[in-house]
Amino acid sequence: MAPAAPTKRVTLSEPLPLDGGQSLAGVEVAYETYGDLAADRGNAILVCHALTGDQYVASDHPVTGKPGWWERMVGPGKPIDTNRFHVICANVIGGCMGSTGPASMAPDGKPWAMRFPVITIRDMVRAEVALLDALGIERLHAVVGGSMGGMQALSLAANFPERAARVLAIATTARHSAQNIAFHEVGRQAVMADPDWQDGDYYGSGRQPDKGLSVARMAAHITYLSEAGLTDKFGRNLQDRDSKTFGFDADFQVESYLRYQGSGFTQRFDANSYLYITRAMDYFDLAEEHGGRLAEAFAGSKARFCLVSFDSDWLYPTAESRHVVHALNAAGAAVSFVELSAPNGHDSFLLEHPALDRVVKGFIG
Amino acid sequence: MAPAAPTKRVTLSEPLPLDGGQSLAGVEVAYETYGDLAADRGNAILVCHALTGDQYVASDHPVTGKPGWWERMVGPGKPIDTNRFHVICANVIGGCMGSTGPASMAPDGKPWAMRFPVITIRDMVRAEVALLDALGIERLHAVVGGSMGGMQALSLAANFPERAARVLAIATTARHSAQNIAFHEVGRQAVMADPDWQDGDYYGSGRQPDKGLSVARMAAHITYLSEAGLTDKFGRNLQDRDSKTFGFDADFQVESYLRYQGSGFTQRFDANSYLYITRAMDYFDLAEEHGGRLAEAFAGSKARFCLVSFDSDWLYPTAESRHVVHALNAAGAAVSFVELSAPNGHDSFLLEHPALDRVVKGFIG
Repeated sequence: MAPAAPTKRVTLSEPLPLDGGQSLAGVEVAYETYGDLAADRGNAILVCHALTGDQYVASDHPVTGKPGWWERMVGPGKPIDTNRFHVICANVIGGCMGSTGPASMAPDGKPWAMRFPVITIRDMVRAEVALLDALGIERLHAVVGGSMGGMQALSLAANFPERAARVLAIATTARHSAQNIAFHEVGRQAVMADPDWQDGDYYGSGRQPDKGLSVARMAAHITYLSEAGLTDKFGRNLQDRDSKTFGFDADFQVESYLRYQGSGFTQRFDANSYLYITRAMDYFDLAEEHGGRLAEAFAGSKARFCLVSFDSDWLYPTAESRHVVHALNAAGAAVSFVELSAPNGHDSFLLEHPALDRVVKGFIG
Repeated sequence: MAPAAPTKRVTLSEPLPLDGGQSLAGVEVAYETYGDLAADRGNAILVCHALTGDQYVASDHPVTGKPGWWERMVGPGKPIDTNRFHVICANVIGGCMGSTGPASMAPDGKPWAMRFPVITIRDMVRAEVALLDALGIERLHAVVGGSMGGMQALSLAANFPERAARVLAIATTARHSAQNIAFHEVGRQAVMADPDWQDGDYYGSGRQPDKGLSVARMAAHITYLSEAGLTDKFGRNLQDRDSKTFGFDADFQVESYLRYQGSGFTQRFDANSYLYITRAMDYFDLAEEHGGRLAEAFAGSKARFCLVSFDSDWLYPTAESRHVVHALNAAGAAVSFVELSAPNGHDSFLLEHPALDRVVKGFIG
C-alpha cells in the first residue's frame, strides 16, 4: 500500500528520544480530532489505537472508505461525546497512516525500511505527548485505549503522570506474555518468509509481502476472537456449497472469513509497520521499566484509573487487568475495575456492547 | 525431505475406497511393531499417531535419530507393556514416512503431489484395518491414540466396531471446531504462500517450502502448549543476552524456541503431507458421518471406551471429551472418563505424566 496523505499532521520541533538509545529528528505525527477544544483546553481526550488501528477513530478510513473503527463509542451523543469533548487520535510512530514509520523517508531520501529504529510503546507515547505539546494541551481530561491502545494509556499514566486526569485501559495488559510474543513472532516470520519482503526493501519495487502479511493477519485474527464466538458465528458451516469438495478451497466459512481478513488487511497496512509495532508490543513490560515492580510505575499518581476486561478475551485475559489493578491498589491510586461478560473475545472492545458504553460514559463523566 | 525407507511395509491387495469417492490402488502402509504377537493373535494393540507423528512410537526416528515419540508409554515394562502386548503403529496414508501419500509415485510414475486425493480420518482407519487384515489380526486388544490418534481410535470404533475390544482416546475430539479449522487454515496458507511450494510440485526441484512449513509449524505449536506452560517455561526471559537488542533477532527465549521447532520440523516432514493431514482433521466430524447424531456412531458397540482429557488443553478441551462420553452413554457403551490436571496443554499426552500412565495401564489391563 502507498502511505495515505493524512488530513492533520505536525512535525515535532525537537528530536524524539527513543528507548533504544537513538533519537529521531523530524518526526511527523498524523492525527485526527473530533469535537471542539474548550477555551481552557481542559476537555481533550486522547484515544490511542490498537496494533492495526489508526487515527480514523470516528471518521471514514481514507483507504478503505469504511467507517471509523470506534464510531459506536466516539461521536456526538456517544459515550465519548464529541459535543462535550475534544477527541484526539494520533497514528502511532512506526505506523503507516501518516506518522513517521518504516515507510517514511530517512534523511538520505530513501525509505527507512528496516533501518528504522525499533521503537517501544513508551516511544509511541512520547510522540503523542509531543503532539499534545504542539497542540498546547497541558493536561488531558482522559487517555483512553483498548488493547495496544490500553498499553499506551498505562504507559502515559506511568511516564507522564501529570498529563492525564483519567486513564481508561480496556482489554489490555501491562506486559506481553510468552504466548503473546509467540503469536507475534509467527506473524513476523510469516512476513519475513515472503520473498517479496526483500529484507524490508520492497518500497517502490512493485512487489510487497502481501502473502506473508496476510498469513500474519490470519494467525493474529484468531487470537482476537473466542473459541465460542467462532463456533457461534461459523461452526462447521460450509461456504456457499452443500457438501465438502475434498479439495483445498475454502470449504468452511471460517476459512473464507480468515482469507478475507488476511487479504483485506494487506490493502491498508504496511508489512514493515506490522513488524515494528508487534515488536514494540512484545517489548512492553511496564514493571520492567520501573525497577521490576509494577506498583512503582504508578507511584504517586493522582489520576483516576478504570480497567475493563472481557471474560472471553484469551489474548489479554482478565488476570492481566487484575494484575494492573493490584499494582494500582498497592500504589494507592484511585482505580475501578470491571470484567464484562461478552462472547466475542478480545475484539469485544470494538463491538456493540451496551455495558461497555455505560462504563466508558460513566468513567469519562 | 526425502521419503524415508521404512523397515516394515505392506502393499494392500485391494484398492482402498475413499470418502471422497475415489479408490486408491496399490496403497502401501508402513508400520512398526513392538513385542511378540501371541499365538492366538489376541494381544495386538494398535497405536495411532498424531498429525506430525509417525510409526516410530518406541524406536529411533530414522531421519532425526531421536527416540520414539511415545517411548515413555510403550515398551518393556511400560504402561503399554511390550512384554505382554504386540504393539502396531502405522504411518497414516497421506503421511510421509513410507505410507502412500502426496510424495508417493502416482500410476504415471510422477509424484502425486496435489493430485493425491483428499483423504479423511476414516480413510486413514480403512488403511489401518486393511493392514490388520494383512497381518491376520481379527480383533485388537485395544486401539489407542492421542490427538489425531484419538480421532482414529474413535473412528475405528465407530466404523469397524468388531475390530477392537478397547478404545482409548486421549486429548481428542469427535469433530474439529471452527477455531481448530482456523489454525489449520493459517498453516496451509503459510505453506501455499511460499513460492517454493510451486503448487505442490516441488519434488525433485531442489526447492521445497521450508519457510512456509516452518511458519505453519510455529503457529500450530503454540496451540499444543498452554499459556501458563509457556509462561512457566519461558516467561519473558531473554535468549543468551542480558538486554533487548532493539532488533528483530530472537531476543526472547520463546521466539528462539519456536524458530527451532519450525525449522527442525521441515527436516522430517513433507509440506504436502501437512496440507493433506490437516485437511483430514478439519473434515473430521464423527456425528456427521452417522446421521448427525454422535451416539449413532457408537450404537451397539461392545467395546470398552476410555476418554482422557487435560485441563490445560485448549486445542481439544475437556468439553470435547465430555461430548464423546455423553454420546457413548447415550449409546449404552461402557465408558470411563478422566480429566487429568497437567500444566502443559495439549502436548501433555506426550510428556511425563504418572497419572496418565496409571490410567493407560489400568485400562489396557
